[in-house]
Amino acid sequence: MSEQTVANTRAQMDRLQLEVSELKGQKGVEDITVGDYLLARLDQLQVTNMFGLPGDFNLGFLDLVEDHPNIHWVGNCNELNASYAADGYARVKPGSMGVLLTTFGVGELSAVNGIAGSYAEMVPILHIVGAPSTSQQLSKPLLHHTLGDARYEAYARAYEQFTCCQKYLMNKETAAAEIDHLLTEILVKARPGYMTLPTNLVFEKISSERLRTPLSGLPPPNDPEVEAHVIEEIVAKVKAANGGVAVLVDACAVRHDVVAELKELIEKTHLPVYSTPMGKTVIPENYDRYGGIYIGSISRPEIREKLEAASLVLSIGGLRSDYNSGNFTYNFPVSHTIELHSDHTKIAYAQYPAIGMKQLIPKLTAKLEAFAAAQQAIAVPKFDAVFPKEDTEIISQAWFWPTMSEFFKPHDVIIAETGTASFGITNVPFPPESIFIAQIFWGSIGYSVGSTLGAALAARDRKLGRTILFVGDGSLQLTVQELSTMLRMELKPIVFVLNNNGYTIERWLHGKERKYNDIFPWAWADLLKVLGDKEEKRSTSYTVNNKKELSALLADETFLRADKMQLVEVMMDQFDAPVTLVNQAELSGKTNAYTPK
Amino acid sequence: MSEQTVANTRAQMDRLQLEVSELKGQKGVEDITVGDYLLARLDQLQVTNMFGLPGDFNLGFLDLVEDHPNIHWVGNCNELNASYAADGYARVKPGSMGVLLTTFGVGELSAVNGIAGSYAEMVPILHIVGAPSTSQQLSKPLLHHTLGDARYEAYARAYEQFTCCQKYLMNKETAAAEIDHLLTEILVKARPGYMTLPTNLVFEKISSERLRTPLSGLPPPNDPEVEAHVIEEIVAKVKAANGGVAVLVDACAVRHDVVAELKELIEKTHLPVYSTPMGKTVIPENYDRYGGIYIGSISRPEIREKLEAASLVLSIGGLRSDYNSGNFTYNFPVSHTIELHSDHTKIAYAQYPAIGMKQLIPKLTAKLEAFAAAQQAIAVPKFDAVFPKEDTEIISQAWFWPTMSEFFKPHDVIIAETGTASFGITNVPFPPESIFIAQIFWGSIGYSVGSTLGAALAARDRKLGRTILFVGDGSLQLTVQELSTMLRMELKPIVFVLNNNGYTIERWLHGKERKYNDIFPWAWADLLKVLGDKEEKRSTSYTVNNKKELSALLADETFLRADKMQLVEVMMDQFDAPVTLVNQAELSGKTNAYTPK
Repeated sequence: MSEQTVANTRAQMDRLQLEVSELKGQKGVEDITVGDYLLARLDQLQVTNMFGLPGDFNLGFLDLVEDHPNIHWVGNCNELNASYAADGYARVKPGSMGVLLTTFGVGELSAVNGIAGSYAEMVPILHIVGAPSTSQQLSKPLLHHTLGDARYEAYARAYEQFTCCQKYLMNKETAAAEIDHLLTEILVKARPGYMTLPTNLVFEKISSERLRTPLSGLPPPNDPEVEAHVIEEIVAKVKAANGGVAVLVDACAVRHDVVAELKELIEKTHLPVYSTPMGKTVIPENYDRYGGIYIGSISRPEIREKLEAASLVLSIGGLRSDYNSGNFTYNFPVSHTIELHSDHTKIAYAQYPAIGMKQLIPKLTAKLEAFAAAQQAIAVPKFDAVFPKEDTEIISQAWFWPTMSEFFKPHDVIIAETGTASFGITNVPFPPESIFIAQIFWGSIGYSVGSTLGAALAARDRKLGRTILFVGDGSLQLTVQELSTMLRMELKPIVFVLNNNGYTIERWLHGKERKYNDIFPWAWADLLKVLGDKEEKRSTSYTVNNKKELSALLADETFLRADKMQLVEVMMDQFDAPVTLVNQAELSGKTNAYTPK
Repeated sequence: MSEQTVANTRAQMDRLQLEVSELKGQKGVEDITVGDYLLARLDQLQVTNMFGLPGDFNLGFLDLVEDHPNIHWVGNCNELNASYAADGYARVKPGSMGVLLTTFGVGELSAVNGIAGSYAEMVPILHIVGAPSTSQQLSKPLLHHTLGDARYEAYARAYEQFTCCQKYLMNKETAAAEIDHLLTEILVKARPGYMTLPTNLVFEKISSERLRTPLSGLPPPNDPEVEAHVIEEIVAKVKAANGGVAVLVDACAVRHDVVAELKELIEKTHLPVYSTPMGKTVIPENYDRYGGIYIGSISRPEIREKLEAASLVLSIGGLRSDYNSGNFTYNFPVSHTIELHSDHTKIAYAQYPAIGMKQLIPKLTAKLEAFAAAQQAIAVPKFDAVFPKEDTEIISQAWFWPTMSEFFKPHDVIIAETGTASFGITNVPFPPESIFIAQIFWGSIGYSVGSTLGAALAARDRKLGRTILFVGDGSLQLTVQELSTMLRMELKPIVFVLNNNGYTIERWLHGKERKYNDIFPWAWADLLKVLGDKEEKRSTSYTVNNKKELSALLADETFLRADKMQLVEVMMDQFDAPVTLVNQAELSGKTNAYTPK
């Protein structure tokens, strides 16, 4: 059996084992508290940091967290930021998850947008809500943090919209199994799950027996008969394409972790490979069969030409949202497309439910190796940084992003806020082994700041390189306080603040000169001093006004050492935007009706 | 007919008029856009400021807002803060409402906690969500800000839990009537309402005919027969009490605006009157028949004694939540209690649905005047500021709040954050005509900062006095960026930052010395400079380390002029808490189970 098959078989056996013990009602010695059981499971899943805020109803559980040897309580400035941090953490730790702890009502409801974003973008998050005791949940007194009309379940009703699974712990007998179900669902579906943990259950004693059987996020096995048919169909299509196959890698290749499987496929078959914005960095961007970023009609012309000329497109984990597809302008026919997804497969018009790519890809690789020579004949455009011809010292978007591309190093974790940053950065190459984080689909501004905190903590765990954030001044105002938590945790991210006086992405969508797109200018270079590093022991801040100053900074040894947190305020023009954003906005404008008829 | 009866009759007639026009399907000349119709209605309701952030899907409507002569777009730093601001604004403008504008998904979901708080605490808020066009809402493309599974309705489903009424505008024919229904519900129920406004409907033309008929928040009339019976019963009870009646004023007296009616009742009947924490300032605290704040077993002893000795308690707009009632320790029998509410009345054990206090109180006043002499005989404790006997220069909670009490002036708007501030401030008297704002029921920390922005704008409208905020350092970190919006709007609040190194309220609830209750210390006195007032043109900041420094500042003429925004960092001990908070925490601790058995 292959290594993968062994892992799969083991995961299936473990699940059956846990089910059997549950059905038998096995009790065992009551040797662990419910709270510690939960922490032990998270520890097994390599969770090292928990995000959130203290609040009435979660303080008892927090004692256990604070005393846990391997799990560290971060303690954020607010709950929305904490949920973003949990998301960023999960993205840098495949196989693990982000964990958010809030209090009932006020705490959890501040995090709804963050959790909904993780749902949309498919990031595994456990949201634990410290809840009133089980007896209070039944008698429903008029406690603070309630709505006043005894609807204690209202918050959970809201969260059902944004989580893939919910468990409301109400008794110790079922607590362990409910925790295990919830964590497994989160891992398999790569979506947030929600749990209420009543104050009195935290210290109830239960058996630790189940902990001996590990949890796994591996998807359930494909039906072998259907799978064999699917492989046969795909092979026939590839054969018919006669070397004209192109692979398009998208979001779910990362979200449902087929990165290793995919790399093997690509390397053994020599298939030309392209990426969508959300699939960026799955395939190393210096790989010689990699052609760059495809975004429909707003792609670089040579990329668009090559991909759209393919006889067959093999789409891996596709997520065709407006901003990820050049506003739905893909130009290749469904009849010539094969789509592999986490939980289904599509060949032209035929759908195959429950045939998932995690197990399918290695089997395909074995079959498609035979076509490597034919594929190798197809040329792939070279994806490199293109510098503009400009005779200005102003830091333009066109110049800034290629410059950054050269500044990046392998193993960097690079985060871009939705806006000029996410649109500008997409079209420049990243070094191998770097990680790219952006919310290209959900697009909640401010996300990147919380996310950077979580990503930097995960990067520290994994001993990766620098964590580098690009965020506009408008977006940074939404979630600014979380920079303070980075200082407190002694993290050393490099934060580029693109100071262009407001919401430039909105200006391009509508209201270019409107006041509602302006913001109040802050003294960015003094910010970290106020947020807790008065004497600049843990950070240094810079302002760069022109290309010369930025270039000098990027060559500066102290700066390059990155042994402190660093904030770089980059002065830019408020109407300057990357060409991809300008094109996207123009396409969006056609569907939005912002002006009178 | 009395003035009140005329107003009521007029309101009922207007509602019928609008219903008739709707049933007849009257169209009229299409002379106004849907967007401008909505703004015209808000203008009629004295709305002068709109809170929120720009985002794709609300930019077209924002053009109309920016161009409106009477409604000003505030433009907040984030949506949660904006929702808090709308709440604070509404609390200072009875009869009007707070208005929040966000974008679809990402924007609206960041504000859920704020809106839920307004729901719980009964504050009228209109939440307008800029939504995708009606055709997109039907075809459900994979747009940014959606969940990826075509559930465009998911956000509305969540908001149904926290709003009293929802309207999803989908065609111009019904738009005006739906807007009118929604605004009326918000006013009558004093709760938030929710509306989606698709991009393409904003500029659709409709008739302005309905605008001629004003909207009203007056509740529907009481059934005269039942009402007469209720009055008779109450009068009999009051007579039997023989002068031993006490009035207890609570939250809903403000929320459902019976302040004027209540003052008349009190003055004409000489009834002794007490207030709960949430009813504070409804009755001027210097009024000679006013006895102070009743909080069950944690009241000042003389207040508790007097109120609990009454033969009959007349409770006005009661909201007996844990923090508003000394953890449910009221000590007077239901059999000797009459409860007046906005939409029902309770006499001992008997409930009378749909008999509301707005119309009932004036009729009661007329009947109860006869008992004034007997009531006058009952003595009322004097409610004054009590200074502690201390020989320390440290600024103690016990000394700070009476000191502040003497600093307050008539017409001040005073906001206290949940925690040491809200608990400490309750037990000191406020001057007449001052307004008190705190979230004693919902208790979301950080609320007070956004709320101060809204309150200060409303106070400017109404030409009230100073706006004064008390917020702890822990809470301020959650929502700090909104101080910047105050600077931008050239508001002049006085912000007292109680620097006691973290979440002191939590320390008293549980985990006194735990790290999770610590925060990272910020340079508070430099904060406003960073948030946009680098040269301190619009603000001044101070730090006071001891009683002497604070006393000197409070006597300083420049400070007292309050012609700039002022931030005062007050250094306090991290374990010091007002006695009311200590007592409340002890009572809460008995019901929470935070430690192992």
